[in-house]
Amino acid sequence: MTVRIAVAGASGYAGGELLRLLLTHPDVEIGALTAASNAGTPLGKHQPHLLPLADRVLADTTADTLAGHDVVFLALPHGKSAELAAQLDPRTLVIDLGADHRLTDSAAWDRWYGGEHAGSWPYGLPELPGARDALRGATRVAVPGCFPTVGTLALAPALAAKLIEPDVTVVAVTGTSGAGKSLKPHLLGSEVMGSAMAYGVGGAHRHTPEFTQNLSAIAGEPVTVSFTPVLAPMPRGILATVSAPLADGIADARAAYEKAYAGEPFVHLLPEGSWPATAATLGSNAVQLQVAVDADAGRLVVVAAIDNLTKGTAGAAVQSMNLALGLPETTGLSTIGVAP
Amino acid sequence: MTVRIAVAGASGYAGGELLRLLLTHPDVEIGALTAASNAGTPLGKHQPHLLPLADRVLADTTADTLAGHDVVFLALPHGKSAELAAQLDPRTLVIDLGADHRLTDSAAWDRWYGGEHAGSWPYGLPELPGARDALRGATRVAVPGCFPTVGTLALAPALAAKLIEPDVTVVAVTGTSGAGKSLKPHLLGSEVMGSAMAYGVGGAHRHTPEFTQNLSAIAGEPVTVSFTPVLAPMPRGILATVSAPLADGIADARAAYEKAYAGEPFVHLLPEGSWPATAATLGSNAVQLQVAVDADAGRLVVVAAIDNLTKGTAGAAVQSMNLALGLPETTGLSTIGVAP
Amino acid sequence: MTVRIAVAGASGYAGGELLRLLLTHPDVEIGALTAASNAGTPLGKHQPHLLPLADRVLADTTADTLAGHDVVFLALPHGKSAELAAQLDPRTLVIDLGADHRLTDSAAWDRWYGGEHAGSWPYGLPELPGARDALRGATRVAVPGCFPTVGTLALAPALAAKLIEPDVTVVAVTGTSGAGKSLKPHLLGSEVMGSAMAYGVGGAHRHTPEFTQNLSAIAGEPVTVSFTPVLAPMPRGILATVSAPLADGIADARAAYEKAYAGEPFVHLLPEGSWPATAATLGSNAVQLQVAVDADAGRLVVVAAIDNLTKGTAGAAVQSMNLALGLPETTGLSTIGVAP
Amino acid sequence: MTVRIAVAGASGYAGGELLRLLLTHPDVEIGALTAASNAGTPLGKHQPHLLPLADRVLADTTADTLAGHDVVFLALPHGKSAELAAQLDPRTLVIDLGADHRLTDSAAWDRWYGGEHAGSWPYGLPELPGARDALRGATRVAVPGCFPTVGTLALAPALAAKLIEPDVTVVAVTGTSGAGKSLKPHLLGSEVMGSAMAYGVGGAHRHTPEFTQNLSAIAGEPVTVSFTPVLAPMPRGILATVSAPLADGIADARAAYEKAYAGEPFVHLLPEGSWPATAATLGSNAVQLQVAVDADAGRLVVVAAIDNLTKGTAGAAVQSMNLALGLPETTGLSTIGVAP
Repeated sequence: MTVRIAVAGASGYAGGELLRLLLTHPDVEIGALTAASNAGTPLGKHQPHLLPLADRVLADTTADTLAGHDVVFLALPHGKSAELAAQLDPRTLVIDLGADHRLTDSAAWDRWYGGEHAGSWPYGLPELPGARDALRGATRVAVPGCFPTVGTLALAPALAAKLIEPDVTVVAVTGTSGAGKSLKPHLLGSEVMGSAMAYGVGGAHRHTPEFTQNLSAIAGEPVTVSFTPVLAPMPRGILATVSAPLADGIADARAAYEKAYAGEPFVHLLPEGSWPATAATLGSNAVQLQVAVDADAGRLVVVAAIDNLTKGTAGAAVQSMNLALGLPETTGLSTIGVAP
Repeated sequence: MTVRIAVAGASGYAGGELLRLLLTHPDVEIGALTAASNAGTPLGKHQPHLLPLADRVLADTTADTLAGHDVVFLALPHGKSAELAAQLDPRTLVIDLGADHRLTDSAAWDRWYGGEHAGSWPYGLPELPGARDALRGATRVAVPGCFPTVGTLALAPALAAKLIEPDVTVVAVTGTSGAGKSLKPHLLGSEVMGSAMAYGVGGAHRHTPEFTQNLSAIAGEPVTVSFTPVLAPMPRGILATVSAPLADGIADARAAYEKAYAGEPFVHLLPEGSWPATAATLGSNAVQLQVAVDADAGRLVVVAAIDNLTKGTAGAAVQSMNLALGLPETTGLSTIGVAP
Repeated sequence: MTVRIAVAGASGYAGGELLRLLLTHPDVEIGALTAASNAGTPLGKHQPHLLPLADRVLADTTADTLAGHDVVFLALPHGKSAELAAQLDPRTLVIDLGADHRLTDSAAWDRWYGGEHAGSWPYGLPELPGARDALRGATRVAVPGCFPTVGTLALAPALAAKLIEPDVTVVAVTGTSGAGKSLKPHLLGSEVMGSAMAYGVGGAHRHTPEFTQNLSAIAGEPVTVSFTPVLAPMPRGILATVSAPLADGIADARAAYEKAYAGEPFVHLLPEGSWPATAATLGSNAVQLQVAVDADAGRLVVVAAIDNLTKGTAGAAVQSMNLALGLPETTGLSTIGVAP
Repeated sequence: MTVRIAVAGASGYAGGELLRLLLTHPDVEIGALTAASNAGTPLGKHQPHLLPLADRVLADTTADTLAGHDVVFLALPHGKSAELAAQLDPRTLVIDLGADHRLTDSAAWDRWYGGEHAGSWPYGLPELPGARDALRGATRVAVPGCFPTVGTLALAPALAAKLIEPDVTVVAVTGTSGAGKSLKPHLLGSEVMGSAMAYGVGGAHRHTPEFTQNLSAIAGEPVTVSFTPVLAPMPRGILATVSAPLADGIADARAAYEKAYAGEPFVHLLPEGSWPATAATLGSNAVQLQVAVDADAGRLVVVAAIDNLTKGTAGAAVQSMNLALGLPETTGLSTIGVAP
């Protein structure tokens, strides 16, 4: 089986990472590549690392251009995919890398994004309970945000096993590509290098409701989330430090995590004494994590690393595509990072 | 008045930063510079940025070499300063940048460092209540650890005003110079660049008891601290994200911080909407901070940035020296960073 | 004597560095700060490292705003300073950090920049033969480009002593702040970090005619220059590697450089065996250099490091101001870098 | 066909990159992994990015351990492979990533490395004239040095077509992984980040004789090489800027390069106006290059980018293995980089 795919938003970072993965996916043929203001220019100008596609000219992002493909990936700014998706054939597999179809609660959508809520689609985090079933055969998939991906996977086993109270703190250090190619002064190399800065502090980041949604579903009760993203001087990677009060003294957290992720192809609990580093996940779809019980503070602490563009975005999209199409889930994906 | 100073450990990062500051201090004359394995080599080999001292040859670190100075700075590995300090004239101002004289609790010393506890000295964090009085005229000063410096200043006003519960979480992103010049594989540039990694997780970092000591004193009750350091790809700087449950609904945290730091020359609460970045503090003795109340999560979140080598180490040492000697506290120090 | 200064272009990198230096200059009082699109906003928004000036509101860049100062620094885009300077009092010291008044040859101006040539001003590279005389008492100064500064100083002694043929190659690795705060995709942190790229190759960079002008004047004959800038992942610093064929076998190059720079306060020939690194010059006005004779290749190779924003821009401006006003040349400047 | 391979030096950077590539090579089965001081520890401790091999325990590097494989890769310090290789079965394909078997001239070996010259093996730069023939069926291969790889490919077409004089200048900016995992102060992250530094200047770098050997063979006459490496703050990548005097006025250099590399799978001449950046080659076996004729300076300038660990080391080893074994040359290799 060869599926023909299209990518809307091919000149951005998420689009570029999708194409990097899809170029080596054995069952994929790359069709239309579209862009907004970059339409009409060759892909090589924007993605010089994708040599095999360097001469491909970007088309306009329209439903017409995207029609006639088996799979359409939408790597568009938030709020841009709902309208476009509505114009695509319902039988086409549409995978939205933006936020439009992640939240199930219209009130949350309205508060955090505003405008009409497009409704929710099957959620592309296969490692969550029940998620694989929802993804198999789906024709619409919402890819999770990068922070909720790593934070949810870091907390899920402890919440599910009631090892911790439903009151969690997430501080996530992120590389700059998470902000996309936005031309903003604080994203200039001169500002970023040599500096760490917080942003969206105090519950102001739009990934907060997605955290709450995921974690409350896992815990079976409302979970309170304090989330702080920190921008660090690296192009890629998220290192999340999450913690929560222990529910009952000192838990055997390690056993819970070992059990929860024993069969997962992409989630890897490190040997005791080793701690995750984002570099080890660069370009891979792996999640590397480690747990610690702090008896003095009475908290469980979990540290998890991913590549924000791979497992955090484009890798999750490919993993979801594989499931939706009935391909082996790991096809075209890897747990091998590019380091150092 | 000109005071003659000596620096033990002049070839390391803390020693280098001390000399950088002292070279422009108007009341200081630089005397003996000592080292361990680097003794006998010129300072310029190890500190090529200190051109005026490039030809100074490093002496052995002994009590004899350090004798005859008004001020002796000990920038030595933990556990090395107590014995040396005991051999120095009691009238000499001795400023220890290591951990040996920070902890007041011998049991804590024993648990975290082991060996004989050297006792505690006046603590070089002048912004704490009562600290300036203890430092004025002191002949022995213990310079705080870099993480406790920024974390304590980030939490002190809220704890003192009982805005938060005594149960705090600190995640602090640090540049690599905090680890000194240790030749360890994970500190190589190839490993560090492009990567964030956690270490000392789950209460395993030796700065934890210093946090507990400081914060409990401020709160007037035991404070529980969950502390996680994260190594980020930058040479200098710490960005601490601290949070704690709000004690009584939504507090006017900003007012408390404004009041607490109104007269402080080095602690700067940023205008609303601005968030600290470590680059803005590079080479300066400033602490830049910002507060947020997260009503959904019921937590106060404070973010604070310092230069770990300046306010976090050598700047605090100079600030303490000024106080001990009766000089204006800000002499030779600055709130102006080197950016971008 | 206290001189009152104004800075046009205070929200950019060159303007910020000027203010960083001028804030600690003992003879300077900081007056008007102006900007283009950032007028009306506080300086702290753009230069968060300059805490003492954080609340200063930026004025519009007009001749009126800049009037009534003893010294006016123009840190403006190329082509913007000539018209403004013409409106300023001829007795005011005007120091142009842009390119408008560097080139003496109108044809060169026309080829490389286009538009009317504003003529040349005394050139702010005091280390060149005769330059100090021209700067003393001057009321107009053109600050050199950052690449010609380091490249000229690296080659001058060898050209003047006829050790090399007048046919030089310059490859200069630069930090990103040299490009200013331009919002261009290739200057985003995500693109810059982890990457080195060449630009302006093959004689296409506008600093080329300034190189030719400087070097030909020193050599007393036309000098051919092949200049390639390389963008490296660091905010500041230039490391220039220059080479040229040896004129007569193996020269005692070191002696020529020692002699040429013996009395210079800011140019420092490193001890044999040490090679310059840009970090050692960060924030300082120093030039660190080293020479090597490659007998096999028959070339002299010189490597020189500066901070592009300090000696390469704002430091040279302050050094020139000192000379023009009759102050000690080194006032407010330093050879001490901020490292690591 | 499945070939069983062994890697000696599996805990280093070259060994890690080899394994990263070989893990996805369809015709390879990974056998013995050996190390020196790291023997007895699991690979995951040293190469946390290679999750599928994390639990493999490293064996001692001995001829016995390496026996019984179809291919043995030697990723050892220079001078260590000759003796070991002599003990391996002559029918085994031995691929040496070190310098021991690169130089054909014993006098050059003696001058640059010293000790007994082990002789030269077929040279693993297939893009050179005649190299593929020598590699097909070979049982011994010497992988080129990273700098000579990129520099030779940047100059070969111009030298072969006599467009330039045999007197070339190479300035190559390199990431830090080229220095391996050596625990030296100047390779610490704190020293490397934010800094560019030259080393091995004036013809002192050991890759110089390999340059001379390659370029003289291509030119058919002795070529003089001035080579300067510059260490830049990035883990991987080399950006080489090479230039030489034009032989006859203005050459159609672009046509010569297009022709020379038209059929090459890994060497890619960029479209006019685009310049190479190392990030675009990260993890790929590609060489990206661009040429410019500087009529004013009378020089040809070529800029070329590679990943020093891939095309510069381990990728070249795999490419050579493919040729030696009669596999398609590009198997297991890619021109797709990981960016941003």
